[in-house]
Amino acid sequence: MPNVSQRGIQMPPSPIRKLVPFAEAAKKRGTTVYHLNIGQPDIETPAAILDAVRHTDMKVLEYSHSAGFESYRKKLTGYYQRNGVTVNEQQIIVTTGGSEAILFAIMSCMDPGDELIIPEPFYANYNGFAISAGIRIIPIPSGIETGFALPSIEAFEKAVTPRTKAIMICNPNNPTGYLYSKEELDVLKEICLKHDLYLFSDEAYREFCYDGRKHISVLSLEGLDNHAILLDTISKRYSACGGRIGAFVTRNQQVLDAAMKLAQARLSPPSFAQILGEAAVDLPSDYFDKVHAEYNARRDLLVKRLQAMEGVVCPTPGGAFYAIAKLPIDDSEKFCQWLLESFSHQGATVMMAPAAGFYATKGRGKDEVRLAYVLNEEAINKAMDCLEVALKEYAKQNGTSK
Amino acid sequence: MPNVSQRGIQMPPSPIRKLVPFAEAAKKRGTTVYHLNIGQPDIETPAAILDAVRHTDMKVLEYSHSAGFESYRKKLTGYYQRNGVTVNEQQIIVTTGGSEAILFAIMSCMDPGDELIIPEPFYANYNGFAISAGIRIIPIPSGIETGFALPSIEAFEKAVTPRTKAIMICNPNNPTGYLYSKEELDVLKEICLKHDLYLFSDEAYREFCYDGRKHISVLSLEGLDNHAILLDTISKRYSACGGRIGAFVTRNQQVLDAAMKLAQARLSPPSFAQILGEAAVDLPSDYFDKVHAEYNARRDLLVKRLQAMEGVVCPTPGGAFYAIAKLPIDDSEKFCQWLLESFSHQGATVMMAPAAGFYATKGRGKDEVRLAYVLNEEAINKAMDCLEVALKEYAKQNGTSK
Repeated sequence: MPNVSQRGIQMPPSPIRKLVPFAEAAKKRGTTVYHLNIGQPDIETPAAILDAVRHTDMKVLEYSHSAGFESYRKKLTGYYQRNGVTVNEQQIIVTTGGSEAILFAIMSCMDPGDELIIPEPFYANYNGFAISAGIRIIPIPSGIETGFALPSIEAFEKAVTPRTKAIMICNPNNPTGYLYSKEELDVLKEICLKHDLYLFSDEAYREFCYDGRKHISVLSLEGLDNHAILLDTISKRYSACGGRIGAFVTRNQQVLDAAMKLAQARLSPPSFAQILGEAAVDLPSDYFDKVHAEYNARRDLLVKRLQAMEGVVCPTPGGAFYAIAKLPIDDSEKFCQWLLESFSHQGATVMMAPAAGFYATKGRGKDEVRLAYVLNEEAINKAMDCLEVALKEYAKQNGTSK
Repeated sequence: MPNVSQRGIQMPPSPIRKLVPFAEAAKKRGTTVYHLNIGQPDIETPAAILDAVRHTDMKVLEYSHSAGFESYRKKLTGYYQRNGVTVNEQQIIVTTGGSEAILFAIMSCMDPGDELIIPEPFYANYNGFAISAGIRIIPIPSGIETGFALPSIEAFEKAVTPRTKAIMICNPNNPTGYLYSKEELDVLKEICLKHDLYLFSDEAYREFCYDGRKHISVLSLEGLDNHAILLDTISKRYSACGGRIGAFVTRNQQVLDAAMKLAQARLSPPSFAQILGEAAVDLPSDYFDKVHAEYNARRDLLVKRLQAMEGVVCPTPGGAFYAIAKLPIDDSEKFCQWLLESFSHQGATVMMAPAAGFYATKGRGKDEVRLAYVLNEEAINKAMDCLEVALKEYAKQNGTSK
């Protein structure tokens, strides 16, 4: 039997999905499982954009342009303009989800052995794309004690080597919910210009910023036209995760040329979801007002409940729909499995993502979990009831309260 | 400005799309362009499967399982069973088009520097995936003089090195239309078992085999369970190129495990097109009868017309909807561009794909073109009228009739 590839072996299984069999077993036993483990919102996809797909009258489901429908890209320029980003439709490549945008950035800009600096914790799937592409992720620590603020300029400088090719951020951040300030983005800009590095910015959660703060895109920073690459997706914005439509946006023509060849090799992004995405650009602006208010209320509730639990640390996230909490436990993977296998409270339990999977540095995040506030307030309250009782019971059984 | 990646530079632009600007200019001048250059069928997508998408009543467009809807995979086992392939739903990963299935095969089975033997000419996009993955394609020649039959066992043996990891075929073949016989597949099986190589088989055109011949899948060959990987797509089968749904099918559990991690990294295949694909499995069997008859008639017409032209060689293709023709010209890239730039006959011209882009060996295929019979018989006749007149005019202007 031939061997599978080394990269196939090294590729990490999804840390979010690893616990799924335990959740399935719990459900089979009749236990309700509150899923705070995955960024799959329960918010309804706007009916108007689903209708756009339903009312399509095509006769032949043809390939689209490899960069996506021209009509969609033109509309997207308006969307970006409203968000402080001036680009034309030739500077946008529509991708198959944000995932493909990330892969295009790495593949267009980096060769095997090149290094990508990312503040950790970071979105776990970046690891998979790095292994696929043969590049190295160099993590630099951000920590729960600073609320996951951008690491210091010195930390970046220390990480830069001759093989460093790019810095990557997710803003607002998955998994931390951290929203980078203008000052922090200016620090990144300075480092990128000084060392001639690309700046990849995953801005999937742009619309979800709280406490009156505004999101700032890397493409709105002056002087970074050749360095900044915006990676985007409609998945979270419009609760359209299954559509698989994203965007790769940059003003660097050479990068666009390279990414365009990658886009041609895979022919075209999915047409139905492009129709959905195009309709989404025309949604009335109060769509985001409502969704924003909903996530804001959920965040407030989740954080209030977590912060009220003994021994729990949870910085208030400034954006996205995630929070990381440090729990008074020994090992969050063990704890999360225990929650599914051995615990229930009033017939229910809670599923969370052990945070170690979001750190590249071994041992970090071992007592942390990521919670996605993608359920309604009633469910969040019940999930927090479970967690509160569970922490006490777990401490009694394990004697590991800190 | 940072440098783009070497792979970004090496990535070949699509040979099929290179002439597009000249076609656009011709259309702007009012010339009708018959597109025989690209495998985009004009056959209508079955209304019943488009309706399945139109009638969807989902509230939230969620991620699907990374391997695709379980219901779809279960149905696909029935589809494969009807085509002589026994697999279960755990042996199928639904992919984003056939493109992703090809990438998963290369990434799961091969490491950078590994070698993949492919009879040339071959589907040009294999080059892009090879460069993305850092592997080497080792072409072995099949030629128009043998009608593009499988190269000899000696040719394969000569190409095998310690870095050889797999052989890839497309059956029936794009770009040649060649349909491999049971005897030829047994030769491949023998080589793969002897040298412990994977056998990747792109079977996108399975249903389109002519002259009463039947398609044989690599997954129906005995004793190849650990070696054979079937790469599939609904694009051509149901005229659904824009859907972007394919499949990666194998009985090798280690390969499935590796590919599954790649699938998890990109989250899920597009949901709308999965609904379409699932509905397609239920189409009445006479759907293929009609489509098959249509392509058969087109093939017969195209080949008859080509074979009647002086100096043109065109082996009759046994499957798919492509033919390669050798023309009495110096350079098909120059000729195809000339057809768009400088020629018209009764207000029309024809666009074909220069065949050199399908060969990896420099200089091969220089006087050949690939024609996709994706237009109706009337259009094919008019396109052939153009070609016939054009060949005479081009010979007069260039004096290069052979």
